[in-house]
Amino acid sequence: MAETLAEKLEKSDLGHWLARFESFMIFVGVAGPFATVPQLIKLYFTHSQHAEGQSLISWSLYALLSLLWFVYGLVVGKLPIYLGNGISMVLNLLMVFGIMLHAGYTF
Amino acid sequence: MAETLAEKLEKSDLGHWLARFESFMIFVGVAGPFATVPQLIKLYFTHSQHAEGQSLISWSLYALLSLLWFVYGLVVGKLPIYLGNGISMVLNLLMVFGIMLHAGYTF
Repeated sequence: MAETLAEKLEKSDLGHWLARFESFMIFVGVAGPFATVPQLIKLYFTHSQHAEGQSLISWSLYALLSLLWFVYGLVVGKLPIYLGNGISMVLNLLMVFGIMLHAGYTF
Repeated sequence: MAETLAEKLEKSDLGHWLARFESFMIFVGVAGPFATVPQLIKLYFTHSQHAEGQSLISWSLYALLSLLWFVYGLVVGKLPIYLGNGISMVLNLLMVFGIMLHAGYTF
């Protein structure tokens, strides 16, 4: 099997950068889901009249996908995967409920 | 370190289910990003008048996050991570451009 960039980096002088990048991505995995907060503020508080522009299909799929990654993270015992996707799942479900509340059934 | 559920499964009669679940999650990682397609259809074609309800901050952060995971996937040599997030990055950037096109600068 071909050596990955990560394996090459580990052997080189750049090895300590890889460790930092991995730590940073753990932070990204947990903090990233909160990117949905401005979208939730628009949907619930400031731009509810535009709720029909939100795709109920897309947000329902996001909720399902984050549930699958949450379960996968638990199975493989990776905290950034299950914590990050657990947070995503809650926020995505809030989007689904908000769309149904303000726009009803839509695609 | 505590044994993960995956390690326990591997040793049990359920081991073959774990392999199937992992294969399924590779499919999910690559197919999942296409969940954004209905949202893009609403933004560009059917509900452009509601573009202001989309959060430019959220979608810009999604684009940035998918770029980071794309780079991380390349570094660790995991195809489902870089392929899935490469697709996400393109679709998220299309959302960012669509919001700016139909709603201009917004939060």
